[in-house]
Parts: sequence; C-alpha cells; structure tokens
Amino acid sequence: MINFKRTHHCNILNKSHIGTTVTLSGWIHRRRDHGGLIFVDLRDKWGITQLVFDPKNSLKAHEEAGVLRQEWVISIQGVVISRSEGMANPKLTTGEIEVQVDTLSILSRSKTPPFSICDEFIDVNEELRFTYRYLDMRRGTLISNLSLRHRVLLSTRNFLDQKGFTEIATPILSKSTPEGARDYLVPSRLHTGCFYALPQSPQIFKQILMIAGVDKYFQIAQCFRDEDLRAERQPEFTQIDMEMSFEKSETVFSLVEELIATIFKQTVDLDILTPFPKMTHKQCMDLYGCDKPDIRYEMTFHRIDEIIQQSHFSVLLDEIQRGSMIKAFVVKDGAKISRRTIDDFSSFVQKFKLAGIAWMKKTEEGFSSSIVKFFSSALLEQLEQKLHVQVGDLIIIGAGPENILNQSFDHLRRHIASLLHLIDPSQYRFLWVTDFPLFSLDDQGQIQSEHHPFTAPNEEDLAFLHKDPLKVRAKAYDLVINGHEVASGSERIYDSDLQSQIFTLLRLTPSDIETKFGYFIEALKYGTPPHLGIALGADRLCMLLCQTENIRDVIAFPKTQKATDLMTQAPSEVWVQQLQELHIQVDKPIDIDTLKESS
Amino acid sequence: MINFKRTHHCNILNKSHIGTTVTLSGWIHRRRDHGGLIFVDLRDKWGITQLVFDPKNSLKAHEEAGVLRQEWVISIQGVVISRSEGMANPKLTTGEIEVQVDTLSILSRSKTPPFSICDEFIDVNEELRFTYRYLDMRRGTLISNLSLRHRVLLSTRNFLDQKGFTEIATPILSKSTPEGARDYLVPSRLHTGCFYALPQSPQIFKQILMIAGVDKYFQIAQCFRDEDLRAERQPEFTQIDMEMSFEKSETVFSLVEELIATIFKQTVDLDILTPFPKMTHKQCMDLYGCDKPDIRYEMTFHRIDEIIQQSHFSVLLDEIQRGSMIKAFVVKDGAKISRRTIDDFSSFVQKFKLAGIAWMKKTEEGFSSSIVKFFSSALLEQLEQKLHVQVGDLIIIGAGPENILNQSFDHLRRHIASLLHLIDPSQYRFLWVTDFPLFSLDDQGQIQSEHHPFTAPNEEDLAFLHKDPLKVRAKAYDLVINGHEVASGSERIYDSDLQSQIFTLLRLTPSDIETKFGYFIEALKYGTPPHLGIALGADRLCMLLCQTENIRDVIAFPKTQKATDLMTQAPSEVWVQQLQELHIQVDKPIDIDTLKESS
Repeated sequence: MINFKRTHHCNILNKSHIGTTVTLSGWIHRRRDHGGLIFVDLRDKWGITQLVFDPKNSLKAHEEAGVLRQEWVISIQGVVISRSEGMANPKLTTGEIEVQVDTLSILSRSKTPPFSICDEFIDVNEELRFTYRYLDMRRGTLISNLSLRHRVLLSTRNFLDQKGFTEIATPILSKSTPEGARDYLVPSRLHTGCFYALPQSPQIFKQILMIAGVDKYFQIAQCFRDEDLRAERQPEFTQIDMEMSFEKSETVFSLVEELIATIFKQTVDLDILTPFPKMTHKQCMDLYGCDKPDIRYEMTFHRIDEIIQQSHFSVLLDEIQRGSMIKAFVVKDGAKISRRTIDDFSSFVQKFKLAGIAWMKKTEEGFSSSIVKFFSSALLEQLEQKLHVQVGDLIIIGAGPENILNQSFDHLRRHIASLLHLIDPSQYRFLWVTDFPLFSLDDQGQIQSEHHPFTAPNEEDLAFLHKDPLKVRAKAYDLVINGHEVASGSERIYDSDLQSQIFTLLRLTPSDIETKFGYFIEALKYGTPPHLGIALGADRLCMLLCQTENIRDVIAFPKTQKATDLMTQAPSEVWVQQLQELHIQVDKPIDIDTLKESS
Repeated sequence: MINFKRTHHCNILNKSHIGTTVTLSGWIHRRRDHGGLIFVDLRDKWGITQLVFDPKNSLKAHEEAGVLRQEWVISIQGVVISRSEGMANPKLTTGEIEVQVDTLSILSRSKTPPFSICDEFIDVNEELRFTYRYLDMRRGTLISNLSLRHRVLLSTRNFLDQKGFTEIATPILSKSTPEGARDYLVPSRLHTGCFYALPQSPQIFKQILMIAGVDKYFQIAQCFRDEDLRAERQPEFTQIDMEMSFEKSETVFSLVEELIATIFKQTVDLDILTPFPKMTHKQCMDLYGCDKPDIRYEMTFHRIDEIIQQSHFSVLLDEIQRGSMIKAFVVKDGAKISRRTIDDFSSFVQKFKLAGIAWMKKTEEGFSSSIVKFFSSALLEQLEQKLHVQVGDLIIIGAGPENILNQSFDHLRRHIASLLHLIDPSQYRFLWVTDFPLFSLDDQGQIQSEHHPFTAPNEEDLAFLHKDPLKVRAKAYDLVINGHEVASGSERIYDSDLQSQIFTLLRLTPSDIETKFGYFIEALKYGTPPHLGIALGADRLCMLLCQTENIRDVIAFPKTQKATDLMTQAPSEVWVQQLQELHIQVDKPIDIDTLKESS
C-alpha cells in the first residue's frame, strides 16, 4: 500500500526545513529534463514545490520519473535541500528549496488536458472551461473565488447568529408562489397532475415563521427562476435571506451595514465606512436616471428646462412643447473627447430611443459647439453655475419623455465612465435607495408590484391606494453597491385585509387569491406581528468581492445562458419509465433554436 | 405611529428592574379578569411576562384590555412592579414581577386557534399541527428544536472550516444519477423533452471537486429522493457531506469523532468519549443480526449449533439438517416475563418469517421450560457458560436461514428492549461498523452496490471481484448512534478502468455508462487523487439530539407520508400555460389510492 499521506502542503517548505524528510502529494504542474536531472513542479491547492530527481541519489526514482506527464498525480518521499546557487525563484514561497526525491509513487495518470493548466492567464474558450470545469478549477482563480465565497457565507452565518438570528431551512419542494418570474416545476408521482414548484424565494415561508413567533430568522437560501439568462443571472442562485419582528426599517439598515462591514473586514480586510448614504427612489431617478446608480463616479443629471426655455434652441423648445424633459450632465475633463466619439454618443442613445444628444465644451476661450449660438452669454453663465462647469469639461444635453431620457442617460453615463476609465475596480461605494414606489406599470400598462405583493405601503400614501396607486410609496429599499442591486428589503403587510386588497389591485380574483395564497391569508389572521426583512444576493456580493464581472466565476458548477450544465449535460433525456411513474408525457420534440426565436 | 420596539424580551424582567419603564411586544398567552384588575400573560419566543391592567393606574388601558383575546399581538408601555404578597410564580424567571400597563396598542387580532397554544402538552392531531404549522410552532418545542438544529449546523460549519474544509454548493438543478432511489425530475423549458434531476446526494460533484484539486470539501446539502416515506424519511433531507484527498479512512474516523464530540459539547453540553468502538459488518451481523445495532443494551446473539447438535431437540436438529443456523440470546432478568408474553414473541418473529422461538428460564432451581428435557445437564452447563446465563435470566433460541434469523432476532431484541424499558433515552452510544460488503443482492437476486457504485473495494479482495463479487469487502463504513445509521462513508474508486468494471458488474451497458456517467468516467482520466468521504444525516442527528423519534420534529415545514405539505397544499395543480411552456402533458388523472395499491 502506497503511503500518500502528506507531511506538508506544497506551499510550506522553505530554508528552515532543509534536511527534513517529507512526503508530498499532488499534480505534475511542469516537468523539465535537464541533462541528468529531472525537475518537476509539484502542485496542490496551496502552492508549488520543486522536486528534483537525481540519478546519483535514486536511480530508480529518476528512471520512473522519466514517464511523468502533466497533471499526473504522484506522491513522493524525499529530503528538502537548498536550490543550487542562482536557481532560487523569489516568486514562490518555496523558491529557495527543492525536494530531492528518494521514492516516487504514481497514483494516477492523466490524458493530455484540452487546455493548459499551468498558465492561468491564457484565455480559454468558455465552453471548454465549463465542460472541463474540474480542469478549469485547477488553474487557481476559481478555487480562490470559491474559498472567498465560503468565507463570506460563514462570516454571515456567525454574524447573524451573534445577533440572535436562527437559520431555518424552508422547503425546496414548495408551492408555486408567483414572484414575477416563471417557476421551475416538479411533477408529483403520488398526486397525478400536481406539481411542486422550486422556490423563487422563501418569502412566504419566512413571513409565516414570523407569524409562528420565530422573531429573527435567516437562511442562506437556494432560489430558482426559470428566466432567460443574462450575465448576472443563473437559474439557481443564493440569497442571504432574513426577516425579523417588532422592528422598523432603521434596524435593517444598521444590521445590514454592520453585516457588510463585517464581511468586507473578515474576507478582504477592507474597512467599510458606515452608515451608508441614503437617497430616495425619486432623487435617484432624477440624479442618475436609474434605481441602482454606480456612485463611484460623478456625472449626475440636472433639469435645465428653465434655461432652455430662455434660449433660442428651437429643437429643444419644440421638445418641451411636446412634453419632453430636458436634462444635462457634465463630463469632467470631457472637452478632450473627440467630435467623432461625441457623435457616437448620439448613436449610442438612439439604441434607447432618445433622438440624440446636444453638447458644449468649456475651453479657456469659453463655450464651444454648434449650439452655443442659441444661448445668450447670461444664459450660458446660468448654465455654467447650475452645472458647476469648469474649463475642460463637456456638457451633454438630452431631451425626451422622462423614462426614455433617464434610461438613455443612465446607459450613456455608464458608457462614458467605462470609456474614460473613471471606475476604480478596487473601490466600493454603497447606497441605500429608499421609498420605492409600491407599484409600477408592466409592458401591458397594467400595475404590478415594484418589489413583491407583500410590501407594506407607506401609511401617508394609503389614501391614494385605490384612486392613484402609482403614487403610493412603499416601505421598501434596495442596497446598491457599485451599480449593482445587492439587497432588497421592505416592511411587510401584516394585516390580512390590506393584503387581500393589494392582491385585488393586482387583478387577482378571489378564487386566484384563495388558490395561490389562501393558506397565507389564513395565517395572517392568527395574530401576525409587524415584521420586515431583506434579502442579499449572495452571488452578486461574492462577484463584487472577487472583482469579477461574471457571476459564473463565483459558482462551482454554473449553467450556460441556455441553462445547460456543459459538464454533466443536464438537462438530459430520462427513461420512459420515469415519465410513466410521474404520469406525464412530453410533447413532440421541437427544435430548440426554432423555439427560442418564436418565444 | 405605534412604537412597538421592545426594550426587553418577555423572559428578562426580574426584581432588579422594579421601577423601570419598559416596552414589551408579543402574543396574549392567557388573560384573566380578576374583579377590577385584568391580568395578561404576554408571550414571545423567549418567555412570558405578566401584565396587569389596573383602572386606578390607567382607565383607558384597562378599558382597552377588556377586548383582548388569546393570540392577539399587542405592544405595551408600563412600569415593572413587584407582584403582590404570595402571588410570585417560582416556575417563571419573571415570576416575581409584573408590568403595570400605562398604554396598550393592539397590533393584530387573532381568530380562535384550532388548538390550544398555551398548553403544549395537550396532544394535537398531527394533520392539524401540520396545517397550522405556525401555531404549532408557537407551542415552543418545535422552535427550540429548530434553534438546536441551527446550533448543530453552525457548529459543524465552524468546525470543518477550522479543519481546512471549504463549503462549496453543488447544483440542485442537476443530472439524474441513480443512487438506488427514484429521482425528482424538473422539466426543462428550453430543451424540450429534457429534464433536470434534483440531487439524491452531491456524490459525483464532490468527487469531481476532488479531481479539481479542492482537497477538502464540505457542504450542508439538501438532497432529494422520491421514495415512499417512513417516519425517518422525508422527500428532501439534509446531509453534512464531506470529501477529502490524499487521506485514508482513519482520518475520516477521527475527524467525524471530533466533529460529533464538538457538536454534542456545544449544543447539549455533553462530553462524548472518543474514539468510538469499531466492529466489522460481519461481527455486527453475527452479534446483533443487523448493521445498525443499538448498543445501549446487551442481548447479543450467539451461535449454539454445536450445543444443539449434542441435544435431543429434534425440531432444531431437523432445522440444522435443512441448513438453518441456530442462535440464542439472553434477556437479563427475563425469567420474570410471563409465559403469555413469551408466546407473543413467537408470533412477533413469525411476522419476519421465523417459525417461532424456543426458550428456557434460569431459576434458583435450575433451568425450566418444556425443552429442558432435550438437554443433558452437562449440555445445559455448557449452554450456561457460553451465554453467561445467571439466575433470573431468560434464554431465547431461534433457528432459520441466516438472514431470516438475523432479521427476526434483531426486531425481537429491539422489541424486548422497548418492552422492558432497557433504553435510557438520554444516553448516546456510538459505533463504527466497518468492512461492509461491496455488493449485496437485490429483490431479484441481482447484485447491487451495498453503498453506491463509487465505493472502493478492499484491495485484498480484488481477486474475487469477478468470480465471487459478494465476497468482496468495501472500504466502507457507517456510523451508528443508538441504532440509527447517522453517517455513511467510504474510500472511493479513483481509477477510471476499475470504475467502469464496477458499472459493468452492476449490469450497465457501455451505452448506459456513457449516457449516465460518461462525464464522470472522463473526469477520472485527468489525474484523480485518492479520495474519500462521508455524509452525515443532519436530520437524524438533530432528531437524536432533540430526543424525539420523529424526524418531522426537527424540520420547519415537513411533508406527510404522501409527500404533501398540508399547510401550503403543495404539490398542487398548475396553470395549463405553465405546462405548455414546459412542453409536457399530464396523463388522465388516476385515483391516488388505486395507484398506491397497484405500485
């Protein structure tokens, strides 16, 4: 029997170990034949140690080492020696030593990998990386991301435990609860024609735990949404989910701030300043045109309708006549941007249905651009003061219906920030966006919950609930980090009548309410405490901490945009018998690509 | 706005707080009108505080308190006062004080609960408890079980983290991997006719993580099996799952022993003696007739074929002729068991296909029973010595084919232990059962994996792999606590050829192997380290720690034996459109009971 139990990991040995007999096990990272000597870089999760096979030391081991190839798994016994003069590698913690091998055991061979493991900077086709996820992991970055993720979730658990929260698992085989997305369904074998749904979130269960008197609940919960995927989305994702009773939003703000500060300190050793700034949803839309602004850079928007109205800028004056809104923002040092690039900005915003942009540069000589002539110098001065324009800046002006203008400017602002490298990827900026509206309009112009139907309306706005529901503010808030929505929380409705009214406003019939939410409405009637909560997107938080833009870099086995696991080839066909037991049949197969286009 | 933010929980206030103004919020546990005074027991998660509404103190609060009913949610401000002479309640931590209420706010009313909350010892129909799980939780036991469960899993995580393990989540939307049970399937919307499977365990993923070089993995994993349920089983269950590379079984034994000792110390403050005793599967079957014996009580089995062969006990002599095995065990102080009860033992074992039992009692006067006459006194002495019989003991003898005898005696042994109250529920006894066979026979007499097909065979037995596979021992072991299998682990096959051979022995065709396990066989070929692991049943462990016999007592929202969540009524019917999007149809409904009988 081979003794492969290690005395050390591959990052440990240094000069202090010289003369020690060691057992190391790991993978062949590189192998070099140098005349009589064979050198092997042995790799494990922690690092690399150089092995030397010297025929003068062990002829047998040297001979056996001749067949070694990349990624084979070996175990060796040997003695730590100093590297020869001038051969030290200062980049490695083990760079001053090597291990002279006495005995070699080959534990496992390897086919030639489809991509290089030893150079992690080589760009590998993403499909190949997913198919051979286990080889991708050997390149290092992924495993260190997963370790960081582990630390984030463990810190979270210990923090919340210390704050008196109890982690309680809620069912995965659950009931369909429409949270605005499509459910994954699981056919029941024992109940023909019935289905479980995988939870889109533990929302109702956690509220029921509050009704049960649990008082402080949390869960690091797997959630599922059968949606078409974008870079930031996966069909299954992880939520740091919490709920508490007899508290107000202020408690949630400070709790989450402390949690975030603890995580950042314990995992990446960053000191985070709390409390985080707050901005209402309204302010946020005015200043940034979106509800999750990246505040690491400036370029806030300002209404300049009044200034335009005093100008002779007929195109914009016409826009105002048509009910458009006029906004402008300043690009610091933007005067250096070429005319051609600025023209591209116009094409850029057209993708978002804005007609185009107007602009001015402020130079030492004053304002310059083809539209300056429409403004009196007093008016220019007014503009300059309003926007705090300085020499070298660029002013960008747009006009359009509020939502289109906001959306276009939001994208343009981010586009310019990226173009001018205004973003420091190592910097983190936090923002609470508060007072979200309770409802918004969907694509069909029908009102829908902006967060979810359990969000409590602001009492001050209750009078508008039926006559002008879009005016009602919710006791709901998001936490935004670097332009990503990382958490979303609210105070909940704890009155069954109000909850039924909200469902009715959302066009659920009494029978819908009964079928989908009957048990919850019933539960609300047995003494429901005031309660509230929040959920943090764990994947996004980890993505930010790992400074990657792709959520798949913090998930061990992610799915592609078509929701496939390329390694296991899930989803896959199943045996006919399995379907028979579940009492279901599959429709005639349709070509996937046809399907995609038609849907 | 009502200020319901609590200054104290309901278990906190005592004499030292007299004179303090407090805000308490919670549920009305009991309410008593005593002449002019109204007393309310206010309850929260932590305890109970008595409130007193005195019209002399606040007429308004007293008047408002008149309408209060059980389980309403209120918040009060008041002052802590001493209870009147002789009114202290020593059973409550708050029993010496009460709070004189100045202001009362009713936060939420309650319908009359379907069962009493304030008397947790009243037996409530289980269906009602599941339907109103949130009210069941208010009765206290469940919430304290869930808190203990939280502590168990948090201790586990911190322990394994300190041992260098990384928690990595593996997919829930996974690939069908036959682990001997039925998969739950999830139809794919984007891939017509294809299905995800919910994982029966993260087995393959964790092995792939070892291939990836993760070295030490763990996960507290949700697992799913679509099986007919017994008291100890749920369709979804939780596993403390771990895997490590370059180690041997001894490391797993000591790691799990330390983990268990840590959990018991940190959660129920018990000192657990390690290491745990070990017994091979063979010894275990010989002594206890089963592979998960409860060793809190004696009554081990002994072969007495040789003694019987020297007797005139023709019935048993005939059995031996037919190839039966003869075993006996001693019930300490069993001579007091009535003839009638002993006769019941015979009927009891007949349920397990054993013909019946023979017995003798040892009294002051020597052996007594109708079979004593078949034995010479020398032979009786031999029996007495072999079984260590003492005066007052009962000997039970059985004969039959080994498996039937073992199974019957195992059940009888447990039956007697329960009948004679030999089990101390507060005691924990641990046992490693090692050297499991690699294969066993299924109902059709075909070989199947005793644990799972990834278990490594013992090298010493490899020669039998093809010619007598049932003889091959596996490097597999279970941890048994008080007769429950709590963990199951093994060294894994790390050679792709051997893995393919095992699949072939299990009658998988090359095409089956390719379809189901192709990606895994491929992964094994890229340098697989020796690895091994274990999984602990978290639900069972918590069940033992909570000293309950029902796994549902440690799960917040369990399913019934028909896999229904009575509270939400999952599984349930879904919209036709949902099925259309998934390209599936449901068969004509069949009556569930008919179905059950035919399957």
